[in-house]
Amino acid sequence: MASGKELCEGVEWRIRVVDGSSEVLVPPTGLARKVWLRTKGLISGLGMKVRMFLKQAWDMGANDPRKVIHCIKVGLALTIVSLVYFMRPLYDGVGGNAMWAIMTVVVVFEPTVGATLYKCLNRVCATCLAGFLAVGVHWIASQSGDRFEPFVVGASIFILASIATFSRFIPSVKSKFDYGAMIFILTFSIVAISGYRVDKLFDLAHQRISTIIIGTSLCIFVIMMVCPIWSGQELHSLTVRKMDKLSDSLDGCVTQYFTNSNGEDDQKLQGYKCVLSSKASEESMANFARWEPSHGRFNFRHPWKQYLKIGASMRSCAYCIEALNSCINSENQAAESIKKHLSTSCLKVSSSSSSAIKELAESVKKMNKSPNMDLLVEEMNSAVEELHNDLKSLSHLLNPSTTAENQISATGLVPFMEIIPVVTLASILIEISARIEALVGSVEELVEESEMKDKIVAKEEKPEGTMKALQRV
Amino acid sequence: MASGKELCEGVEWRIRVVDGSSEVLVPPTGLARKVWLRTKGLISGLGMKVRMFLKQAWDMGANDPRKVIHCIKVGLALTIVSLVYFMRPLYDGVGGNAMWAIMTVVVVFEPTVGATLYKCLNRVCATCLAGFLAVGVHWIASQSGDRFEPFVVGASIFILASIATFSRFIPSVKSKFDYGAMIFILTFSIVAISGYRVDKLFDLAHQRISTIIIGTSLCIFVIMMVCPIWSGQELHSLTVRKMDKLSDSLDGCVTQYFTNSNGEDDQKLQGYKCVLSSKASEESMANFARWEPSHGRFNFRHPWKQYLKIGASMRSCAYCIEALNSCINSENQAAESIKKHLSTSCLKVSSSSSSAIKELAESVKKMNKSPNMDLLVEEMNSAVEELHNDLKSLSHLLNPSTTAENQISATGLVPFMEIIPVVTLASILIEISARIEALVGSVEELVEESEMKDKIVAKEEKPEGTMKALQRV
Repeated sequence: MASGKELCEGVEWRIRVVDGSSEVLVPPTGLARKVWLRTKGLISGLGMKVRMFLKQAWDMGANDPRKVIHCIKVGLALTIVSLVYFMRPLYDGVGGNAMWAIMTVVVVFEPTVGATLYKCLNRVCATCLAGFLAVGVHWIASQSGDRFEPFVVGASIFILASIATFSRFIPSVKSKFDYGAMIFILTFSIVAISGYRVDKLFDLAHQRISTIIIGTSLCIFVIMMVCPIWSGQELHSLTVRKMDKLSDSLDGCVTQYFTNSNGEDDQKLQGYKCVLSSKASEESMANFARWEPSHGRFNFRHPWKQYLKIGASMRSCAYCIEALNSCINSENQAAESIKKHLSTSCLKVSSSSSSAIKELAESVKKMNKSPNMDLLVEEMNSAVEELHNDLKSLSHLLNPSTTAENQISATGLVPFMEIIPVVTLASILIEISARIEALVGSVEELVEESEMKDKIVAKEEKPEGTMKALQRV
Repeated sequence: MASGKELCEGVEWRIRVVDGSSEVLVPPTGLARKVWLRTKGLISGLGMKVRMFLKQAWDMGANDPRKVIHCIKVGLALTIVSLVYFMRPLYDGVGGNAMWAIMTVVVVFEPTVGATLYKCLNRVCATCLAGFLAVGVHWIASQSGDRFEPFVVGASIFILASIATFSRFIPSVKSKFDYGAMIFILTFSIVAISGYRVDKLFDLAHQRISTIIIGTSLCIFVIMMVCPIWSGQELHSLTVRKMDKLSDSLDGCVTQYFTNSNGEDDQKLQGYKCVLSSKASEESMANFARWEPSHGRFNFRHPWKQYLKIGASMRSCAYCIEALNSCINSENQAAESIKKHLSTSCLKVSSSSSSAIKELAESVKKMNKSPNMDLLVEEMNSAVEELHNDLKSLSHLLNPSTTAENQISATGLVPFMEIIPVVTLASILIEISARIEALVGSVEELVEESEMKDKIVAKEEKPEGTMKALQRV
């Protein structure tokens, strides 16, 4: 196909060359051919784009098969619910009950368990609440006579819809009940304006709520049974992965600078960049994780909020690594002798910092306080101390106090400007180590809180345990 | 109420003190009172929380009245559509056509014009496309006999739902058609499993699509007529605001450091922080802005993507300001003499940088290339040059080459460690000025592209203009 395309383009070129002379002789053929070639070009261009798009999609699926699994899960849930209603004559047409079950599945099914549970619970609760309220309003409206009925209904819809919409702007409501507020407005309006009598409404409401519950149950079942993806687990492993990346970037940058090696993997060096703007995704994951029941090593009330603090600490480290990187790539290159003078201690600081981050990642991974952590932090601090000392002794390189005759032209002495890049790098490294200490603090908080919660859960479960033991007796 | 609560708590305390002796005498009263007091405490605590929540909501509304206006708009649109269907007997119950119009309004109404248009267009197109496809599948299924019908329907739902769900993961689809893909799955499933004959389906589809169009038209009318909030305008003014904040932070930090004044507004100094994690919100705004027709000074194809580039440049400046801030707040304080030596040139760099950013903000605001920009950048560069020179001459302070007898104890000489913070600060300032130049580049690109688009639009509009003129003749 590719060779065919090339051939076409070749033909087109030749035509353009002879355009001037042939156009007068056979204008219709020329025009038709032009249109044909243009169309063909467009089609092949479109085909190219489609092929590119498909390739991109294929790569995405191959890189993260869980996305493909999610799609299959959606298809599965939807097929089940559709066929149930297709085979059994439960429905009364397109607008009937089947629709609500299908709509629930389509709207509520999200890639992670937490997001799905959030939507399911919000949907069920908001539907019930709005349904009851609307039945009440409907009753009041029907009691107030034909003349006032539209006013009562209209005013109640206006007021409640406005309030519910406003509540969606409030951060605490938005993070937990955004979807619920929308469903509340929807259900309330639909039920309030319905022309049915109240007793028939109850019937309808019962059917509707039961279909919604069927839909949500099916969703929850499929999402939790077929290769579940937990928001909490995702947030957890994302945090660990980001720590590893930070550590690799930090170590890689400094090593590359001092050893002048370009062999380092560029992708590895740029790893810190994914930490820079991760706030939004972390927040949404933590929000969804709160809805998840205990899974794996995580209890129901795992301190997910602490991950946001860790994320913030990691970002503050990443900002510094960004500055470090710019310092490394700056045009002002440092004198080799100065680089040599500071290289040992700088490399020590960077390697001890990065192994501290690695250990933190391990600690988060295993969710226990690492026994080596204090030692590593101490090592990092002593490396920083050493770097301090090396920096102090730098002045001797600048100005060996023993033989200071003609400082500017003396060999072995370095102009002040050439030490600036290394000094800047060193002080940023020192700042990074301070920020890593803050990171250590927030990781320790997480581990402690999680252990505390574990104990509380264990205590709460104990009575149940004894109950079971008693029952067995 | 507050005094009453204090009284209660006082009573409770007294009871706890006499608990041991009085409990034996009047246990039921004590228990009842305890329960009552506990309940009262809970209720007053809840009341406190509710009051706090209402205060928060009130403040939010007072700070941004447009949010309140949006809520009123939602209420308005919903009341109109509800009353239309309530007063005219167009509907056949809760599940009828009214529902689709209401649902459309509830689901589609977003705070900004762009987001609403995106959802409206997606909804209408996806419904039409899915409807036609589903009717086709339905026809094929009904031709294949009773035995195979469920298989054909089930397989088609499974395959199309899976593919559409997968497409939602692809970034280019997600940014433009995420909502459409969901509506596609929904409509396709509902229509495909419907038990109607194909000719009746067309009827139904026609009704449904017309109600959806009524709903979307109403939404578009209300959102564009009543105090419209344009995503594009928002993105534009957000960009300008952020530039102002960056400039204030930069200038404020450096001034505070060198003049040792604490009078600077802390909020002003921390302004750069809102730039740090603005990527997600900027991207969604730019996505929605693409759907907006020309409004104010923005044409339909305004280069919104360029704002993302400007945002990235601003973030890279903000990362450096972050590092600068940490350097200012660091424990190692610089020697006063060194600070004095560099203060003039550092202040010059920071003030010229910040006025360059201010000018950029002006330039974006007015959407034309500022004539002073080149001059300001030159000024900034010459200030940087001056700072370079001052840095070079620093070595004299360290080691006055004329009288270098006993460097370490000589008065007026500064230990090397005490110059490090200022040197770091200076080199970060130099880096910031380099990043500001990149920012200047991206702003200039935006202005150029926008002027180019303006010209194209003017050209495209010209023939129409002559047509109109001809018609008038």
